[in-house]
Amino acid sequence: MPNYTKRSAKNLYTYKKCCNRLPYLCAMQKIGILGGGQLGRMLLQAAANYPVETFVMENDKDCPAAHLCNHFTEGNIRDFNDVYHFGKHLDALTIEIENVNIDALEALEKEGKRIYPRPSVLRTICNKAIQKKYYIDNQIPTSEYIITHNITELEAHKAFLPAVHKLAEGGYDGRGVQVIRKTDDIAKGYDQTAVLEKMVEVQKEIAVMIAVGNSGEIAIYPPVQMIFDEKLNQLDFQLCPADLPENVKWKAEAIALTTVKNFNSPGIFAVEMFATPEGNVLVNETAPRVHNSGHHTIEAHYSSQFDMLWRIILNYPLGNTEAISSSVMVNIIGAEGHQGNAVYEGLEEVLKIENAFFHIYGKKQTKPGRKMGHATIISNERADLLYQANKIKNTLTVKGKSE
Amino acid sequence: MPNYTKRSAKNLYTYKKCCNRLPYLCAMQKIGILGGGQLGRMLLQAAANYPVETFVMENDKDCPAAHLCNHFTEGNIRDFNDVYHFGKHLDALTIEIENVNIDALEALEKEGKRIYPRPSVLRTICNKAIQKKYYIDNQIPTSEYIITHNITELEAHKAFLPAVHKLAEGGYDGRGVQVIRKTDDIAKGYDQTAVLEKMVEVQKEIAVMIAVGNSGEIAIYPPVQMIFDEKLNQLDFQLCPADLPENVKWKAEAIALTTVKNFNSPGIFAVEMFATPEGNVLVNETAPRVHNSGHHTIEAHYSSQFDMLWRIILNYPLGNTEAISSSVMVNIIGAEGHQGNAVYEGLEEVLKIENAFFHIYGKKQTKPGRKMGHATIISNERADLLYQANKIKNTLTVKGKSE
Repeated sequence: MPNYTKRSAKNLYTYKKCCNRLPYLCAMQKIGILGGGQLGRMLLQAAANYPVETFVMENDKDCPAAHLCNHFTEGNIRDFNDVYHFGKHLDALTIEIENVNIDALEALEKEGKRIYPRPSVLRTICNKAIQKKYYIDNQIPTSEYIITHNITELEAHKAFLPAVHKLAEGGYDGRGVQVIRKTDDIAKGYDQTAVLEKMVEVQKEIAVMIAVGNSGEIAIYPPVQMIFDEKLNQLDFQLCPADLPENVKWKAEAIALTTVKNFNSPGIFAVEMFATPEGNVLVNETAPRVHNSGHHTIEAHYSSQFDMLWRIILNYPLGNTEAISSSVMVNIIGAEGHQGNAVYEGLEEVLKIENAFFHIYGKKQTKPGRKMGHATIISNERADLLYQANKIKNTLTVKGKSE
Repeated sequence: MPNYTKRSAKNLYTYKKCCNRLPYLCAMQKIGILGGGQLGRMLLQAAANYPVETFVMENDKDCPAAHLCNHFTEGNIRDFNDVYHFGKHLDALTIEIENVNIDALEALEKEGKRIYPRPSVLRTICNKAIQKKYYIDNQIPTSEYIITHNITELEAHKAFLPAVHKLAEGGYDGRGVQVIRKTDDIAKGYDQTAVLEKMVEVQKEIAVMIAVGNSGEIAIYPPVQMIFDEKLNQLDFQLCPADLPENVKWKAEAIALTTVKNFNSPGIFAVEMFATPEGNVLVNETAPRVHNSGHHTIEAHYSSQFDMLWRIILNYPLGNTEAISSSVMVNIIGAEGHQGNAVYEGLEEVLKIENAFFHIYGKKQTKPGRKMGHATIISNERADLLYQANKIKNTLTVKGKSE
């Protein structure tokens, strides 16, 4: 039972209880994942390398992760009863999306279940106003902001513009975010609790993934640099390592580390940051889970973000975050004006690229902007990385075919 | 529908038929795998990168592949009806073990199903006497042999010793093989149809994996070198690339290529060969499927053997067989004297090795010699590869715990 030798007495007790109840399963931990999207799917691909029994809950039984787990439960991850009953018989739970029922996770944590990340982290993250306050409270550099509760309050802050208005709760993947450059844009703002962030001059958008083990041990992945599609506010390319001066890189790593350490929670975290032209680094937001900005780690790093999360959950030593090669990651996104059964036009052509790895998420339906897959290119020549990434972007189109 | 554009008219017809019947699935091919062991498991991990609907048949609903497919069928892969009914509604089938019902696959092939490899290849491979004749008929170098049908016949060939006696049918993973060095050993021989192969002086055991696409296009992986555990006749380490003089390497590749080409079948093939001290290369045997000698390709090569087989089945371009790094693969095998629920002693320790990747197959029960997992180490320093491989071998033990 080597994966238990380093456990605390409390966890050992949990294990013993489990063993009495289900002796035939004592070598395999039962781990639940809330959410069944592509992150869950890739997490399950990595799970098959370890002795673990996997459980997934999602409200769509055809979701990308539904067929790669030992047990699938159709349920609402935002519903207390669904989450609580799902988690009650498991050893530990993790998430692949933040928007889950935190009350249920808190109740499960009180009963001794291990939750990655701890529910307290989700409380902080899930509300952008609380998240901002967390950065301020912990002296973590972040852009200036004001909390607004309605359009009238927003109008009172004309002097604060240009700014970005972000819904405090419920935003995801570019939804719930409005750029308010000038007075005319105020009508686009939110008439509910939102964070108005002063627009900063961004030289580079970067992200750092950090792994935290059960005893607080930490491993940091090299910073990545993102290039966004401005229209969709979705990632276009992502380079690893980020092209940053050493001092900015160190600053980014130190800030990301402080951000994550103060959560006091095991798990895997993506800290998204802005590097300004003056060499400052500001935290934009944090995701306490496997994340789009860690996809390249599957092929380009020794321990992928998915492998790493299993190591954490199963209480194994943390993996090696070092890069095997430089890399670029390209999201494969549903084309504008296309909806219906997904058809991957140009897939055969891009599959000829000799140093590219493709991940098609198996979503039957495409729609404009939907994340349908990604590709990672590995090479130690930056020019080759960008050339192939552009080739994929210009060749592969996800179209929709009506039924 | 890009993955159909290169199809022959016949396949296009199959596709259209499928589309009329199941229009909502027309973007996803339905692919069946006969056998649900670790090879199936890793094949399914790779399947999750492509738009494909997977089906597995195996007689154990807790087999390593059972929970990673879209649809699992409990059935006997050696039974005509089970295989035929399993395959009837699929677009294509593949195998992860040769010992399947070939009659059923032939019937399905006649009905237009694509089978990887073609059943004719299985007919040749599944009987070691026919396999040997295939090598001779195609001028492929192989060790001298005699077919024996009983012990009496075996006794008549004392002058042929030392030799290896191999059951013509039913042997697998070291079973059905007896070394007959001298007259005293004859009693260990088989009293049924078997191949008596003259023992050759083997300097190195090597293997070459080859991929063949639907139009006959071919990709070759670099030769690997194997070191066997003599007691179990099971792989101990496997080095890639093999440490061979250039001319022997070319000979091995050319012989493997001839072996595979003459099968006239798409699929993935492992050709196992002996390199003699004189620089000759002899084919030992061929496996027309993903194979133990290709495990290292998951992390050490651009397109793994599993990725490659999906590319072939889905009619995509072949992948890149080039190595990202040199590698060594270590099988993780059930310890002698241990049977019962698998416990991985030393797993935490070996998981600290920074350039090693682990694959635990999720088999609940261990027994002596059972393949329970493997590890691949990547490094361009041969000494480091061997050091870490030995460390894993000496640290990790799969013990059994009685229930």
